[in-house]
Amino acid sequence: MIVVLKPGVAREKKEGLIQWLERQGLQVHVSDGQFQTVLGLIGDAAHVDMDLVGSLEIVDKVSRVTEPFKCCNRKFHPEDLVVSAGGVPVGGGHFAMIAGPCSVETEEQIVGVAKAVKAAGADLLRGGAFKPRTSPYDFSGLKAEGLELLRVARAETGLPFVTELMDIRDLELFADVDVIQVGARNMQNFDLLRELGHCDKPVLLKRGLANTLRELLMSAEYVMSGGNEQVILCERGIRSFADYTRNTLDLSAVPMLHELSHLPVIVDPSHATGLARLVPPMALAAVAAGADGVMVEVHNDPLNALCDGAQALRPEEYEKLAAKVREIRKVVTA
Amino acid sequence: MIVVLKPGVAREKKEGLIQWLERQGLQVHVSDGQFQTVLGLIGDAAHVDMDLVGSLEIVDKVSRVTEPFKCCNRKFHPEDLVVSAGGVPVGGGHFAMIAGPCSVETEEQIVGVAKAVKAAGADLLRGGAFKPRTSPYDFSGLKAEGLELLRVARAETGLPFVTELMDIRDLELFADVDVIQVGARNMQNFDLLRELGHCDKPVLLKRGLANTLRELLMSAEYVMSGGNEQVILCERGIRSFADYTRNTLDLSAVPMLHELSHLPVIVDPSHATGLARLVPPMALAAVAAGADGVMVEVHNDPLNALCDGAQALRPEEYEKLAAKVREIRKVVTA
Amino acid sequence: MIVVLKPGVAREKKEGLIQWLERQGLQVHVSDGQFQTVLGLIGDAAHVDMDLVGSLEIVDKVSRVTEPFKCCNRKFHPEDLVVSAGGVPVGGGHFAMIAGPCSVETEEQIVGVAKAVKAAGADLLRGGAFKPRTSPYDFSGLKAEGLELLRVARAETGLPFVTELMDIRDLELFADVDVIQVGARNMQNFDLLRELGHCDKPVLLKRGLANTLRELLMSAEYVMSGGNEQVILCERGIRSFADYTRNTLDLSAVPMLHELSHLPVIVDPSHATGLARLVPPMALAAVAAGADGVMVEVHNDPLNALCDGAQALRPEEYEKLAAKVREIRKVVTA
Amino acid sequence: MIVVLKPGVAREKKEGLIQWLERQGLQVHVSDGQFQTVLGLIGDAAHVDMDLVGSLEIVDKVSRVTEPFKCCNRKFHPEDLVVSAGGVPVGGGHFAMIAGPCSVETEEQIVGVAKAVKAAGADLLRGGAFKPRTSPYDFSGLKAEGLELLRVARAETGLPFVTELMDIRDLELFADVDVIQVGARNMQNFDLLRELGHCDKPVLLKRGLANTLRELLMSAEYVMSGGNEQVILCERGIRSFADYTRNTLDLSAVPMLHELSHLPVIVDPSHATGLARLVPPMALAAVAAGADGVMVEVHNDPLNALCDGAQALRPEEYEKLAAKVREIRKVVTA
Repeated sequence: MIVVLKPGVAREKKEGLIQWLERQGLQVHVSDGQFQTVLGLIGDAAHVDMDLVGSLEIVDKVSRVTEPFKCCNRKFHPEDLVVSAGGVPVGGGHFAMIAGPCSVETEEQIVGVAKAVKAAGADLLRGGAFKPRTSPYDFSGLKAEGLELLRVARAETGLPFVTELMDIRDLELFADVDVIQVGARNMQNFDLLRELGHCDKPVLLKRGLANTLRELLMSAEYVMSGGNEQVILCERGIRSFADYTRNTLDLSAVPMLHELSHLPVIVDPSHATGLARLVPPMALAAVAAGADGVMVEVHNDPLNALCDGAQALRPEEYEKLAAKVREIRKVVTA
Repeated sequence: MIVVLKPGVAREKKEGLIQWLERQGLQVHVSDGQFQTVLGLIGDAAHVDMDLVGSLEIVDKVSRVTEPFKCCNRKFHPEDLVVSAGGVPVGGGHFAMIAGPCSVETEEQIVGVAKAVKAAGADLLRGGAFKPRTSPYDFSGLKAEGLELLRVARAETGLPFVTELMDIRDLELFADVDVIQVGARNMQNFDLLRELGHCDKPVLLKRGLANTLRELLMSAEYVMSGGNEQVILCERGIRSFADYTRNTLDLSAVPMLHELSHLPVIVDPSHATGLARLVPPMALAAVAAGADGVMVEVHNDPLNALCDGAQALRPEEYEKLAAKVREIRKVVTA
Repeated sequence: MIVVLKPGVAREKKEGLIQWLERQGLQVHVSDGQFQTVLGLIGDAAHVDMDLVGSLEIVDKVSRVTEPFKCCNRKFHPEDLVVSAGGVPVGGGHFAMIAGPCSVETEEQIVGVAKAVKAAGADLLRGGAFKPRTSPYDFSGLKAEGLELLRVARAETGLPFVTELMDIRDLELFADVDVIQVGARNMQNFDLLRELGHCDKPVLLKRGLANTLRELLMSAEYVMSGGNEQVILCERGIRSFADYTRNTLDLSAVPMLHELSHLPVIVDPSHATGLARLVPPMALAAVAAGADGVMVEVHNDPLNALCDGAQALRPEEYEKLAAKVREIRKVVTA
Repeated sequence: MIVVLKPGVAREKKEGLIQWLERQGLQVHVSDGQFQTVLGLIGDAAHVDMDLVGSLEIVDKVSRVTEPFKCCNRKFHPEDLVVSAGGVPVGGGHFAMIAGPCSVETEEQIVGVAKAVKAAGADLLRGGAFKPRTSPYDFSGLKAEGLELLRVARAETGLPFVTELMDIRDLELFADVDVIQVGARNMQNFDLLRELGHCDKPVLLKRGLANTLRELLMSAEYVMSGGNEQVILCERGIRSFADYTRNTLDLSAVPMLHELSHLPVIVDPSHATGLARLVPPMALAAVAAGADGVMVEVHNDPLNALCDGAQALRPEEYEKLAAKVREIRKVVTA
């Protein structure tokens, strides 16, 4: 950590700060410039409250030298992580096609969609049993019954599945789920993250609507520091002032997260745009940007879907998209 | 709900949509303009998926006529709600001064701060026992012990207290808490909100970092539709591209929320700015904007605070601020 | 335009508004619902101040039925526009590779880069003679001399060039420029836009840092309504809360602009990311998203570039990128 | 400037960078930590391209020690600047009430409003003769005739006036204007700013919709570095994801700008909210936050205003507001 003092700071105040920093267990290197003094802190500054130091009257600014995340930091893990998602490898050159309906509705629906996306080349099935809804009056999922239907679809097709856990009290219902999804709204539900750090399932962690990459990585750190290193990051659109799309898909997050971390990074173009007709171009763009997978909503009857039908592709549309995804992937990895 | 069709839509497609809408239980008024057709939907359109309709190929745009929130909608509740926060009235002309440390640390600290803020005129004590922290390596609160210390401070001073619940599994520990706070990161933790709808304590609901006013009100709706109508809204800064402050305090939310809803609206200038020296001007601004209360962090030893010391006022600073708050309040309500 | 009145509005007030709207030359269709009244306005509502109507005490909300842009609206121009950029077609299936240095520095530099990017397959040269710089102390371009050097590079390579006009008073210096660029900071410099509406050169209009798609299209409308229909739109990153990239490249703007307008849409990944190493993945993503061209900064000596060296590719890097761009383009248009 | 190198950088690369930095005229202090090397640069680093250095493969991050603005930096100008706005002092304890219509429309209108706001206590008249409009089809001001009508209103009331200059070619028409306003959309029209640096009139510089405080100060620097030090800063709302207000008024900018700079800071609550009924609370909040003035739109017939009637107060509403502004100001400065 580096601390820049304001010009003309009284000597006693400077000494006072240096002594306080030393009491936190840090070595302080003082460098007096013509105009300002710079303190370089050596030692483990991760526990020092940077905001507090920055707010002191005599301090001009503070900046971190090292990132506050460790378990998910590529500096300490130069090799890409390959997550095993119910046997399907994700990351480190393994590309994952994840597809399925927003919500699980009936056995016929989920099994039908699962078969269709499998035929189109999907590796993993997605489907929501517990649905976060902005309004308390909207359909919020079939819950335990939905999980059961996902198991049926898995048995019928062999596709492992990813599904969202919203409430920590439901964790035991997820015992044989293949990948547990943490939704964007729960990205900083720290108790939930901590609990998932103690389980042995891969976690698909969605970036919150207004969360920075550092915050996303710190949330991955919550899971990983508990012992569970199987984390997949997912970009799904951020909130901006967009007027025609629901969110703004931030694809530069893909190469930047790969630079910062060794974790796999996938993209969800369905939630980002909210419009089925924007999903194919944005899915292809995600692949071109280097994503390790794309998660796409597919529904056999979007007009009658109980949730988010607007953003779901029909199976035949997904099939066409999947073919192009594979071709773009070939160009990217050539 | 109003649905505008694209120009030149084929007659059968238009008829198909109208029939589909009628099957959802709505009456459809068709108005053919020179250039475009407009469908006016009459009946309870709250359950119709507006995004889905908007995404149809033949639809140009869709707009809601009525707000999706009911319990907290001023249209149905013209009178201001007065919430009783441990006996202290908030809203409807009753202004609440809430103050205390970010985290509860020791009995001496919390009792000391409680006495000081009471002397300065505070009506309610705040203090965190469970602390949401971006990093898993940071101090996350004294938990049950912290709640116990808050009870001690209440006993010593008579001040009721507000404290944050993060994990739904801890709810029973909060049995004699005066006001339960839902933090910004949990504003859309819908299971938590639903559970709080069944309890009999006032809920202080903080606006999420990137949540719109409508989303905030929909979260209040989650609590209220469960039967608990005692909700206080709290603006605490939104995320923008700000370079010198932590967040951007959105004070126009105060009069706008008052227009949309009958719930009390308070402001937390400490988290919004992250800098103690910006807290007094922004607290006064909040009062001038018509807030029903201000919640301010106060610590007797900010430099050694375990959390967010950078934004805490010292008791003597709070005392000065509190005096000015009262004067501004007098001007505003004159 | 549709106007929704508040519930329980007095009859005289409603009549007053209807009469006022009729005086603006509109026909008003009144539709009284159970709960609220909706007014449908027929006629040219483009000149009615929607914000004013929306602010009236008796009005609940107002929404537009038709977009305020006409010249650039795909509804009236279903065929893609092909712009001739100094003889190079852009749009409507014609993909443009635009490359060159941020600033023109010396004859050797600009001619060298021009030859290199031509060899790599570029169709158009870019280079700044007038540079907008946040700081008055930074290098702001060679000005007239820079334009002269661009002409030399064109003569040597046959590549037409695009360069930015900042000050309307310099317009005559641009007489033989092939494409005039309007920078992001000038996207709403309305006098400049109006003037360009009277000239006969293609205009490359960059989206402002915080401008919506509608605002971008309204700025195109300024140029086009003056008679100059040769406008190319350019997405170059928007401002968000991004922590590791300079801006957030909004690629969903590409398919959405194509839906709203018939104008060609290109992407500038260099300014969006500010980091050379992110340019290739984001350029490929732009192509995959359906862009009609990509504009990339290339410099033969980035470390000593006078401006924005951080985001420039070296010629050999550009060559590799260009080859992949062509392959992705093939997949997209297959 | 401080440069942090990546861990494990090869010695030759480190030496190469140090030599390059020294060639830029800087002294480099090397501090080798356990894990990373930190370079402290001494000398005038203002001309070094921080982004370029940050993008180098061996560099982890770069941070500025000193701000890039000088003329408007409070560090070098500890005393508040008092600007003379046509004889009216602004800043340094002098509070300015600025009021008037969005656009000048007729002599009767502007003289009528000027008399009314003067009676209510306004110090300066505002009124637009040249109006920036998002749509080319909207009323764009009376231009030279509007300036003439402002002169008439000044002659009748003695109030100096502030009015916006959009096109640098119109500068000579502004010869006897009291304060020249630079609108939000032109905040980074650098040629315009540079030209204003050579004139002898106070400049009221509005913050752009998505500009940081540093960018605002750098724009002030453009004017001041040309020799004209009479700059007033104006916060007028930033763009966020707000759903019910036009923009988000960023009042924490007021104390923060006062900390960073000695220039006066005023607030425009009318454009920020776009709604007349939100103007009074936000104007009072601005005063409470410490603004040196508030600029408010007032119109004698808002319903028939040619521009932005939605946000204009009627004269009698302004009178009430002005009285409260004075009372709040008394509390703040007590």
